[in-house]
Amino acid sequence: MNTTAQPRRARRGRPGHDLESVLRVAVGLFNERGYEGTSVDELASRLGVTKSAIYHHVSSKEELLRMAVDRALDGLFAVLAAAGEQAGPAIDALEHLVRGSVEVLVEQLPFVTLLLRVRGNTVVERNALARRREFDHAVTELVRRAEREGDVRPDVNPAVTSRLLFGMVNSLIEWYQPRDGSNNGELADAVCAIAFDGLRTR
Amino acid sequence: MNTTAQPRRARRGRPGHDLESVLRVAVGLFNERGYEGTSVDELASRLGVTKSAIYHHVSSKEELLRMAVDRALDGLFAVLAAAGEQAGPAIDALEHLVRGSVEVLVEQLPFVTLLLRVRGNTVVERNALARRREFDHAVTELVRRAEREGDVRPDVNPAVTSRLLFGMVNSLIEWYQPRDGSNNGELADAVCAIAFDGLRTR
Repeated sequence: MNTTAQPRRARRGRPGHDLESVLRVAVGLFNERGYEGTSVDELASRLGVTKSAIYHHVSSKEELLRMAVDRALDGLFAVLAAAGEQAGPAIDALEHLVRGSVEVLVEQLPFVTLLLRVRGNTVVERNALARRREFDHAVTELVRRAEREGDVRPDVNPAVTSRLLFGMVNSLIEWYQPRDGSNNGELADAVCAIAFDGLRTR
Repeated sequence: MNTTAQPRRARRGRPGHDLESVLRVAVGLFNERGYEGTSVDELASRLGVTKSAIYHHVSSKEELLRMAVDRALDGLFAVLAAAGEQAGPAIDALEHLVRGSVEVLVEQLPFVTLLLRVRGNTVVERNALARRREFDHAVTELVRRAEREGDVRPDVNPAVTSRLLFGMVNSLIEWYQPRDGSNNGELADAVCAIAFDGLRTR
């Protein structure tokens, strides 16, 4: 569902009436033109509302960016926390984390897309990059634990393993096309099958 | 090695004297600010030359973009052709292709980075996207052949397998840091180990 195209068809002015629709249209524009390349004027025009209608909901464009990347990060950190609470081998927690991350990417696709394109030009972006690094370190730590437990191959550096693993997961933002009736569970199964057991038959 | 930072230290005007240095600095700027966000004026200023010095080498900004994405694409298609000429099982050709692609990414990092961020706003970008799709189809076909030969797991759709495989390979542009003495062969080994045999110990 392309929410950025919606306002043109919707009743004039309506999408600017609640924060959620302002946020969704803003994220669509940020992904389309870049955060720097999008003005509040363009957002207002896309929504068919006045700038003051937008400032009724948020204080600045940067606040929209913060809310957007936080939604993606909060989703990923919730999955990380749940994975950390798993009893049992680290490799099971890692699989739980990959599966949950695929679900967050699919469910919050525009928000995660924006997060993964952030380059660090503003305070909000630098904070987002810092949280991404924190997430990456936690993944590397989990890979390292699983390696100590003998479940992850020891011939690849754990930091490289975690980068490649999430390189695969994050590539979804480049090619995944949401479709009615598409099954996120199947996609998560495919990612886990390839990442954990490889594409070669055993 | 960061070629975009070089001109500031180099002798004034020198980097604009040959096409290769103009191209490298242009690609650095395109990656930093986006193709749309970079003007020939800025390029001239970064190089410390006049605009006419740039137009001595190329007819337009778009020609620089075309040369840059073609360098990345030509490298990848050369590897694809070499993989296609391999006798023997398709899975060996696929491994050859992954290994060669990692090498192209590492050796032509700024060029491949630019290619992978192209969005299709100009003729050059749309042509680049068409060639990328052609490459993706060839990878999918190779995965399909390897599956028929019994060497690739049949439980994941070949198109999804090839997307995940190259999602992992292409993620290098996000995290790979070239270092003196770093070994591309080791990186290619790591990618092949994880992608083909999985991160789980057997």
